[in-house]
Amino acid sequence: MPFAGQMGITVRELGDGTATLHLPFRDDFLRPGGTISGPVMMGLADLAMYAAVLSRIGLVEHTLTVTLNITFLRPPQPADVIAEAKLFKAGKRLAMGEVALYRDGDSNMVAHVTSTYSIPPGAVK
Amino acid sequence: MPFAGQMGITVRELGDGTATLHLPFRDDFLRPGGTISGPVMMGLADLAMYAAVLSRIGLVEHTLTVTLNITFLRPPQPADVIAEAKLFKAGKRLAMGEVALYRDGDSNMVAHVTSTYSIPPGAVK
Amino acid sequence: MPFAGQMGITVRELGDGTATLHLPFRDDFLRPGGTISGPVMMGLADLAMYAAVLSRIGLVEHTLTVTLNITFLRPPQPADVIAEAKLFKAGKRLAMGEVALYRDGDSNMVAHVTSTYSIPPGAVK
Amino acid sequence: MPFAGQMGITVRELGDGTATLHLPFRDDFLRPGGTISGPVMMGLADLAMYAAVLSRIGLVEHTLTVTLNITFLRPPQPADVIAEAKLFKAGKRLAMGEVALYRDGDSNMVAHVTSTYSIPPGAVK
Repeated sequence: MPFAGQMGITVRELGDGTATLHLPFRDDFLRPGGTISGPVMMGLADLAMYAAVLSRIGLVEHTLTVTLNITFLRPPQPADVIAEAKLFKAGKRLAMGEVALYRDGDSNMVAHVTSTYSIPPGAVK
Repeated sequence: MPFAGQMGITVRELGDGTATLHLPFRDDFLRPGGTISGPVMMGLADLAMYAAVLSRIGLVEHTLTVTLNITFLRPPQPADVIAEAKLFKAGKRLAMGEVALYRDGDSNMVAHVTSTYSIPPGAVK
Repeated sequence: MPFAGQMGITVRELGDGTATLHLPFRDDFLRPGGTISGPVMMGLADLAMYAAVLSRIGLVEHTLTVTLNITFLRPPQPADVIAEAKLFKAGKRLAMGEVALYRDGDSNMVAHVTSTYSIPPGAVK
Repeated sequence: MPFAGQMGITVRELGDGTATLHLPFRDDFLRPGGTISGPVMMGLADLAMYAAVLSRIGLVEHTLTVTLNITFLRPPQPADVIAEAKLFKAGKRLAMGEVALYRDGDSNMVAHVTSTYSIPPGAVK
């Protein structure tokens, strides 16, 4: 899989500890059966969580995913995908949050993610 | 992200409830910083778990990932990646297992995954 | 640990796929260091998720926890604990949701849980 | 739930990054249906992971659970419970590992846990 930056993802909104990302649909995102593949959603969610962390702590290098837990709720039919990330907490060493994934224009969540990120020492005062 | 089948992944070994997959390195797997991106590892792990499930229940359509929890242990330097999946249990409705990810030829695990798969009704007698 | 029913937990609100539970503080919930022990919070969260599932599907026996993922955000000082559970989805075979844990009267989440429950065949039409 | 130390848990083996704990059965561990309750297993697993972390880093205060993910495989019939914890990694700031839970004398795993612990700054050189 190419780095998520190559997937055409854009940031729709960036708040203080929140981020909404948009992934335009592409045919090669489909898995057999015609629904959007899980790893595409995981990659989008990971990037949304990363954006939410940076929205709080600034552009800190070496901010890394420690854990990512995804629950798949509905196999999403072909459509653009929206990821809404929100931090639970950003401390000096760890940030935790969740990401809700939707088909663009549909309010039924297709997948839910919780994630923990590691923040390098000294980055947050 | 292209469907994992397009990533060049091959199956090295398939047992009864176990599967070992091999992902040949490609430059476009790298994230900024020069290590292999998380979503590449998640995609490989998901496919390895899927192979382990099918090794037990046969080629059942609509066998779907319900949950996938990944813990990143070490940012992997560029190398082929090996995924070793092993089922904890395959029942009539759910299969659970884990996947260990390694750089090829290096015994230090780079990431660990646990996952739950849903098996469609009637597929397992 | 005694069954959660013995912990003095009461249901504050029960909606359609939501439940709010209240755990009165007891000294023996404390871990060394004087904060409320993790397993107490896990037990409360599991029961809150169970209540949210039953609020949707009715009193179905053999509804069982499959996965429970907890993230600890802040070690909670002694206080009553509130658990707010909300389903993401309840299908015929699985229900998924999340639980937010708070000290009573304090809006800072102390822990977050996601969980998957298994629903026995035939229980949901 | 009382602190796990009050549950009668003993340490059977302590290695370098491994720990095996034993929980003697008690009637009040049972949930309705007559199997051992989930929170009892979560509490035992959390303590086993804690022991495995300390076996590697020494008796460091403020070593705290960040995440704990449990997968329930089989509702355990009444019996003593064994928890085998093994670290994946212990770094300067985080330790990650897994715990397998068994009924004493039965090789079928009843539950599996992965967990991340936070290690306070300066505790590991």
